[in-house]
Amino acid sequence: MEFGSDNNAGTAPAILDAVVACNGGPAPSYGNDPIMARVRDRIRTIFEAPGAEVFLVATGTAANALAIACFCPPWGAVFAHEAAHAEVDECGAPEFYTGGAKMRLVGGRDGKMTAADLRARIAATGQGDVHSVQRGLVSLTNVTEAGSVYSLAEITALAGVAKDFGLPVHLDGARFANAIVATGATPAEMTWKAGVDVLSFGGTKNGCMGVEAVVLFDPSRAWEFALRRKRGGHLFSKHRYLSAQMDAYLDGGLWLDLARHANGMAARLESGLRSVPDVAFAFPRDANIQFVTMPRRVHARAMAAGAHYYLMPHGTSLDGDPEERLLCRLVTSWATTEVEVDRFLAVVRG
Amino acid sequence: MEFGSDNNAGTAPAILDAVVACNGGPAPSYGNDPIMARVRDRIRTIFEAPGAEVFLVATGTAANALAIACFCPPWGAVFAHEAAHAEVDECGAPEFYTGGAKMRLVGGRDGKMTAADLRARIAATGQGDVHSVQRGLVSLTNVTEAGSVYSLAEITALAGVAKDFGLPVHLDGARFANAIVATGATPAEMTWKAGVDVLSFGGTKNGCMGVEAVVLFDPSRAWEFALRRKRGGHLFSKHRYLSAQMDAYLDGGLWLDLARHANGMAARLESGLRSVPDVAFAFPRDANIQFVTMPRRVHARAMAAGAHYYLMPHGTSLDGDPEERLLCRLVTSWATTEVEVDRFLAVVRG
Amino acid sequence: MEFGSDNNAGTAPAILDAVVACNGGPAPSYGNDPIMARVRDRIRTIFEAPGAEVFLVATGTAANALAIACFCPPWGAVFAHEAAHAEVDECGAPEFYTGGAKMRLVGGRDGKMTAADLRARIAATGQGDVHSVQRGLVSLTNVTEAGSVYSLAEITALAGVAKDFGLPVHLDGARFANAIVATGATPAEMTWKAGVDVLSFGGTKNGCMGVEAVVLFDPSRAWEFALRRKRGGHLFSKHRYLSAQMDAYLDGGLWLDLARHANGMAARLESGLRSVPDVAFAFPRDANIQFVTMPRRVHARAMAAGAHYYLMPHGTSLDGDPEERLLCRLVTSWATTEVEVDRFLAVVRG
Amino acid sequence: MEFGSDNNAGTAPAILDAVVACNGGPAPSYGNDPIMARVRDRIRTIFEAPGAEVFLVATGTAANALAIACFCPPWGAVFAHEAAHAEVDECGAPEFYTGGAKMRLVGGRDGKMTAADLRARIAATGQGDVHSVQRGLVSLTNVTEAGSVYSLAEITALAGVAKDFGLPVHLDGARFANAIVATGATPAEMTWKAGVDVLSFGGTKNGCMGVEAVVLFDPSRAWEFALRRKRGGHLFSKHRYLSAQMDAYLDGGLWLDLARHANGMAARLESGLRSVPDVAFAFPRDANIQFVTMPRRVHARAMAAGAHYYLMPHGTSLDGDPEERLLCRLVTSWATTEVEVDRFLAVVRG
Repeated sequence: MEFGSDNNAGTAPAILDAVVACNGGPAPSYGNDPIMARVRDRIRTIFEAPGAEVFLVATGTAANALAIACFCPPWGAVFAHEAAHAEVDECGAPEFYTGGAKMRLVGGRDGKMTAADLRARIAATGQGDVHSVQRGLVSLTNVTEAGSVYSLAEITALAGVAKDFGLPVHLDGARFANAIVATGATPAEMTWKAGVDVLSFGGTKNGCMGVEAVVLFDPSRAWEFALRRKRGGHLFSKHRYLSAQMDAYLDGGLWLDLARHANGMAARLESGLRSVPDVAFAFPRDANIQFVTMPRRVHARAMAAGAHYYLMPHGTSLDGDPEERLLCRLVTSWATTEVEVDRFLAVVRG
Repeated sequence: MEFGSDNNAGTAPAILDAVVACNGGPAPSYGNDPIMARVRDRIRTIFEAPGAEVFLVATGTAANALAIACFCPPWGAVFAHEAAHAEVDECGAPEFYTGGAKMRLVGGRDGKMTAADLRARIAATGQGDVHSVQRGLVSLTNVTEAGSVYSLAEITALAGVAKDFGLPVHLDGARFANAIVATGATPAEMTWKAGVDVLSFGGTKNGCMGVEAVVLFDPSRAWEFALRRKRGGHLFSKHRYLSAQMDAYLDGGLWLDLARHANGMAARLESGLRSVPDVAFAFPRDANIQFVTMPRRVHARAMAAGAHYYLMPHGTSLDGDPEERLLCRLVTSWATTEVEVDRFLAVVRG
Repeated sequence: MEFGSDNNAGTAPAILDAVVACNGGPAPSYGNDPIMARVRDRIRTIFEAPGAEVFLVATGTAANALAIACFCPPWGAVFAHEAAHAEVDECGAPEFYTGGAKMRLVGGRDGKMTAADLRARIAATGQGDVHSVQRGLVSLTNVTEAGSVYSLAEITALAGVAKDFGLPVHLDGARFANAIVATGATPAEMTWKAGVDVLSFGGTKNGCMGVEAVVLFDPSRAWEFALRRKRGGHLFSKHRYLSAQMDAYLDGGLWLDLARHANGMAARLESGLRSVPDVAFAFPRDANIQFVTMPRRVHARAMAAGAHYYLMPHGTSLDGDPEERLLCRLVTSWATTEVEVDRFLAVVRG
Repeated sequence: MEFGSDNNAGTAPAILDAVVACNGGPAPSYGNDPIMARVRDRIRTIFEAPGAEVFLVATGTAANALAIACFCPPWGAVFAHEAAHAEVDECGAPEFYTGGAKMRLVGGRDGKMTAADLRARIAATGQGDVHSVQRGLVSLTNVTEAGSVYSLAEITALAGVAKDFGLPVHLDGARFANAIVATGATPAEMTWKAGVDVLSFGGTKNGCMGVEAVVLFDPSRAWEFALRRKRGGHLFSKHRYLSAQMDAYLDGGLWLDLARHANGMAARLESGLRSVPDVAFAFPRDANIQFVTMPRRVHARAMAAGAHYYLMPHGTSLDGDPEERLLCRLVTSWATTEVEVDRFLAVVRG
């Protein structure tokens, strides 16, 4: 009953097989392996973006921070939701990689910014006033940290606000596949057609060992990205092992199949939880993450039965008022089984 | 006939097996996996350093830059050989991670600094003079970039110079195993017993997919290292795949066996080349790297036969005076075979 | 009728005289001038802090950013009011000098944080969680940007919160003299006795040409400060001209006299404005800054009469609904005259 | 007998007068003062560069570091002489302001690089190789730190090398006036006509209190410069005091008169020293700095007589072999008098 994080899941068999398969004999290092060429082609095809440049790194933080640094100067403001991973969970990586840019945060329900709030926040940053940081970049996240999913219309509206101010747009797609499955949008529609300039295209959480693609729809920064990646220590010498993961991930639509499974298990879980009187939903469940509240006694029962998930804020919280409602994050993944979901529902029902 | 780089070799079977084996079921993320606990214990045992702190990253540049940043302030000087990887091949990663420290370079034959030259360079950096960067850290490399190996006495002398000035010592051990095999020193002797405070302990070049351990013999910077690693995007979510590599690498002395093989193949290659009149050695061959000069006509013959290695500086250099002597770097690895070596020797002999 | 900024005022005669007087003959450079020794002694005496270390720089942004950088690591959070100068008006200087620390902002009426809000914000920053920036430093401002003044009790409470979390405290005292005059606290009470570790002690806005002292009540970072100052380009070669300003500023309590005048002129202005029906106060007036609203027609009349002050947000705003209320910031300085105040009041009264 | 540094001299009377004169009444802050407009015009006229952008800062380190940072990316190499002020005497300011660029040093007699050596150093930096820092910028210094002066032909040749590689050129002109006087070149010839893109145009050492102009002949980086200056804490609120200095410095050719005096005093000093058998010249004397060796007994006599100058490396060196030759740096300034020079010569002659 693993609902702690899609990071806790292992690697999907086809992806692990590809890692094993690429192991025979020598291969050119540092991204010059032939598999990388195929990955590049696949991504260009999937995104209908023949001119896009593609780079692989091993972590989402690296993908986000490098992407942001290529499009936001040190004196720029990064406009993002106050719950964005780049703000909350990267220990200041954007500030580090940009050389000291400033996060300018926007609130908003369900982990989402509204276009109006984003517009107001950008407008309030004193462009052309030397005393102020300048408007730098808009960073969106889909699936959001609250588990909600921006619709295609919402992404387009937010990117449109950025464009009104002439700002580049970064999309943190650590769970991009889950967002695509949830919305039915095409990868192109969710990115460059909506105004996204650079995408962190996640693989790790959705069944890879550790690989993320950064897709530069605006290829003018490709060489800068390559240098920043190297300088950041993120260029792999035995790069083929990144390439092989991403290649298998994209092959035959596996990436979508894995996300479809994760979202489906989440839907099954939601459906069951909706009928449990003790459980209430904190945010809408759009993809593979759901936030619910439940009394401590139910939580304690779930823990005792071997369930694994996180409370927000972090803690075990087994002691205290048994009726106090705790906020629980439940994440499903490519590896979640119906059996796990159903066992968990049985435990929660009591 | 792959002599281009130990980075071009694949992954040793036992290490790949371990990666596959660790894949069953969920595992705690971000370094909290149980395999990491075992890795930590193994390294403490191997280095006879029960108080050492151990972190894994995926690239040598990350290991070096993070290690240096923990021990050298932004206004510090990093004393290193002018051919050090951190100076030449990391696109400024030390400057980036330290926040702008300055490399203060020392020359020296065969890729090595002498203790006297190091002492003079440190002494010439105006400690206590606010106009000057301050003495920061000494960074050594073993095996050196020239393929030579510092003896235990040499490492001890260089670290002793650092200690005379109260400076911490970093050892770039991207090929640490090869240096241990070459010298017969114990890991403890080559590191903390000689005065090394922090080690980049390489796995990638010696048969891993992509993993390096940073060993902090001075554990006071461990939490800082953890934060810098996260902030640099080098903390893996699915960390078990790093742990599993390092665990298998250390199990049963595999790391030394792999290095022994690589060094042995290099010795076989050297032995053969010494008897080829066209070939001359540019530096002593101590471990798994050798630099030789040969006439262009011999190089062209080797290329035509399918050999792969690098010229220094980089280039193919097939056109030009056939008698011009070219500087060639030949690297063997855990994967090099006697057949490859002997075929190459036959080709070079003509 | 200059109420734009205390930065627009010139230099007080005694300070200018001191600059002229120090000009005879050669003097040791880079802070080794004898006047600096006297300045150091004066500040130690005024602050009852014989162990404090003192450095001069020429701008408030330099004072703040250098002070913060000495006490907050790159992965730290700076807790400050959302209207703090360091957040709003320094173009990201704290992020730059710290190497990418993150501002964690606290709201609050009248430009002030409450102790409870500060405590909550600090508590919510996940100390010990490697994914989060760590608690770094609390930065207070007195006089605040809204023109209000923290009482001694408030400063003590806020610094006490910081101490509860083991955090250092920075006080941006660009208008420290005005705050001292307003509260009647002693310099020691307002700083180290309340828990302040480092003070930006402003001179420029209060009658100097351009000089700020940074007072390190915790002298352990003095050498680091000296290096950061040099490296930031803020160590003056002909340092005597900074020293002479600060020396005259402190001599005979001039700094307090100048602030007393500025605050007194503000009180006279406030007193007059309170009786103008068209004028309303936006925040309490505690020192030399006041924020009022007035209809555009009154603003237009004041502009036409030659008054100078700023609207918030910046703009001339002469066109539009004559009854629309505009937010005006009125600043008095050591140079403001009763005649100016009274003329302005007459104009506003209409 | 002050020959320690032109930084030890005071402020020339006309410049001090201008500072005093600008003090009446309020003035717009942050560079919007009317005197700054005149300064900008003067510099454009003097340099025959109507499109140049001009900014004032208070220190030479700020001028150099900000100028370099605008033209060299974090992953760039700054090519400079190994004795350059930016390398030796700025505590890593270029590394700090660029975000971690690397100094790539060139040796050379008399503090000068040759065009051939510069070309070789640039060529050896692996442009287009992601493992290496990239070619960034060439930084020249005139007058050099050794007191020699690059001729117009030399500057043009060095800048020409930069242009061959497409690199921008920075000229550290902390003693630009002395170089102009020494060579007879026009300001335009020594800068943009020779290929210089950005100049640190010194005022402080040549009679100002503390002001340097940065002249951007390539104005495309002007806004970036303005932001970097603010963010670095180098934008003065009471900017008029910088403007007034520079305005008086340029008025009526004062800057050249002051330098002519300093160089003339140096020539008088040289002329006298050439005839002292105990004294030998270490480098050619071209402007206002000269390096000579003399026996310790002569040095001790000079010290005892009240002379002030620096030994290289720093130290008093009064104890030791009386015949040991010490390297002495003798600097004259706008304030040096014939009496001082002649007294010193008498003392040295013994």
